[in-house]
Amino acid sequence: MKEFTLIDTFFKEKGYQRKDVMLGIGDDCALTQVPQGQWLATTTDTLVEGVHFLPDSPARAVAHKAMAVNLSDLAAMGADPCWINLSLSLPNADEAWLGEFSAGLRELCEYYSVQLIGGDTVRGPLSITITAQGFVPENQALTRKGARPGDFVFVTGTLGDAGLGLDLLLGKANLSGKDRQFAIDRHRFPTPRVSTGAMLRRIAHACIDISDGLLADLGHILKQSHCGATLDLDKLPLSAAMQSLNDREKALEYALSAGDDYELLFTVSEEQKGNLDTVLANYNLKATCIGQLNGQAGKLDLRLHGEAYSFQGQGYQHF
Amino acid sequence: MKEFTLIDTFFKEKGYQRKDVMLGIGDDCALTQVPQGQWLATTTDTLVEGVHFLPDSPARAVAHKAMAVNLSDLAAMGADPCWINLSLSLPNADEAWLGEFSAGLRELCEYYSVQLIGGDTVRGPLSITITAQGFVPENQALTRKGARPGDFVFVTGTLGDAGLGLDLLLGKANLSGKDRQFAIDRHRFPTPRVSTGAMLRRIAHACIDISDGLLADLGHILKQSHCGATLDLDKLPLSAAMQSLNDREKALEYALSAGDDYELLFTVSEEQKGNLDTVLANYNLKATCIGQLNGQAGKLDLRLHGEAYSFQGQGYQHF
Repeated sequence: MKEFTLIDTFFKEKGYQRKDVMLGIGDDCALTQVPQGQWLATTTDTLVEGVHFLPDSPARAVAHKAMAVNLSDLAAMGADPCWINLSLSLPNADEAWLGEFSAGLRELCEYYSVQLIGGDTVRGPLSITITAQGFVPENQALTRKGARPGDFVFVTGTLGDAGLGLDLLLGKANLSGKDRQFAIDRHRFPTPRVSTGAMLRRIAHACIDISDGLLADLGHILKQSHCGATLDLDKLPLSAAMQSLNDREKALEYALSAGDDYELLFTVSEEQKGNLDTVLANYNLKATCIGQLNGQAGKLDLRLHGEAYSFQGQGYQHF
Repeated sequence: MKEFTLIDTFFKEKGYQRKDVMLGIGDDCALTQVPQGQWLATTTDTLVEGVHFLPDSPARAVAHKAMAVNLSDLAAMGADPCWINLSLSLPNADEAWLGEFSAGLRELCEYYSVQLIGGDTVRGPLSITITAQGFVPENQALTRKGARPGDFVFVTGTLGDAGLGLDLLLGKANLSGKDRQFAIDRHRFPTPRVSTGAMLRRIAHACIDISDGLLADLGHILKQSHCGATLDLDKLPLSAAMQSLNDREKALEYALSAGDDYELLFTVSEEQKGNLDTVLANYNLKATCIGQLNGQAGKLDLRLHGEAYSFQGQGYQHF
């Protein structure tokens, strides 16, 4: 199958079409329009087979994850997603795989009103690079450097499930039934917290998505905001699957250091805490307060049952 | 070396900085601003070792080519380059290689006033994906579908050199001295025709860059513009290196079907031909008229010494 036939068959003029796309797939470039008063948020993530997903992962899960990790970065910035570019490196043009992959991609594009505007397909080891863009009103983006001492630390969803799901697939953990399926789904089909991110624009001081693990990603906020933090580990939101693990220490380790959850970690001042509760309730969203920031730059105190807790693990290492 | 150290050492806050970048490398997303009255042009190209460049190619050449192929797509659209995102898949964090690669990237960023605003570094087989963006005034972009019967067909530079250069490196062609070096440099360090592209905005009807070979890329214009063309092969611009080949037939084959030249192929109406000549002269740019379009959709006539010329080759096949 030629590159152009492949693109026409699986990607061109398929899926969600936006009015701000003046020219989509099929020319040297796509042409798009950014509304006045909006900044453009841009992120790029690459997934490599055998590194970021297991060999022989279902194509639909690979597409979902490639989209979700990028949408999650937009969410962490408080941006509304608009366009993606896809670069697909494939060992061969496997039509069944491409059919599933493109369907998975389309599904998330439809759901989040995102248009695929271009990309590249090349022959090579299986890997997917997506560059995603979104709009955020001028000066309202959520950065890592806006946190202040006294802010409360929140996370969306539950922590560590994706890491548990991966270990289940690798035979390094043991669960069955619904709990097992839940954790594996969290690993394969993470939910980018797009609506929560947009809602946080006028409320949060700082925000990041948890891709490398809670402590590693909190570390980025602490470093860039020159703050310290105390976390109350009793408050970490754990799923029923996680709680069903017999090993409580191991569950804490997943929650603190496993990557790939794509929950949002954000900080909110005392004054905005009431607003946050109202908005979360109105939109039926959930976030849990797990600690508070202080002025001791870079210092992280973990407390369990009211006592200091020592943790030696670290987040995902890329090299 | 950790991913973050790698990014800080080789990419963050290095090289050209633009005022329309509100936030660059180091957060979940970059934040940028598009000027009013401008559309955003976006393109993505991936280069895989062993597919798009030879194993053990100099890192500086790999960086140059990864940038040039993307800038060339912007040029073909008539867009002024502004930002790039880089995804780098590396088997290991080789600091010498990264030093050369990042220097090569910075060189082109400086020259074309482009800022690296983000990206991803992952462990995997060597491959580089760049998403490049540029500005083009509303409704002035050069597309593939704007050509009309009667338009004259032009190309910039000389044709086929990059293909010849590749064959020299592979031992499939034989040249020595300056001619050899010229062709190899054209393969390794193609020049994106950025200023020519911008200059063509008010002059050309259609434009494409030659990445898959003259005939393959002309084919895209003919198909999308519903035109045919007659090309006068005596007029194809050939470099001194190409002319020094003893095999005239082989030289024509390179010029017609070898890819990777990244020259611009564009069409201009009879009325605009005078304007084109003036502007080319003013800016000291060069383009050669090689034929004319007609209304016979999809029909391509090649003429050599006034007679029909039959050519069986085809452009680069991606799969």
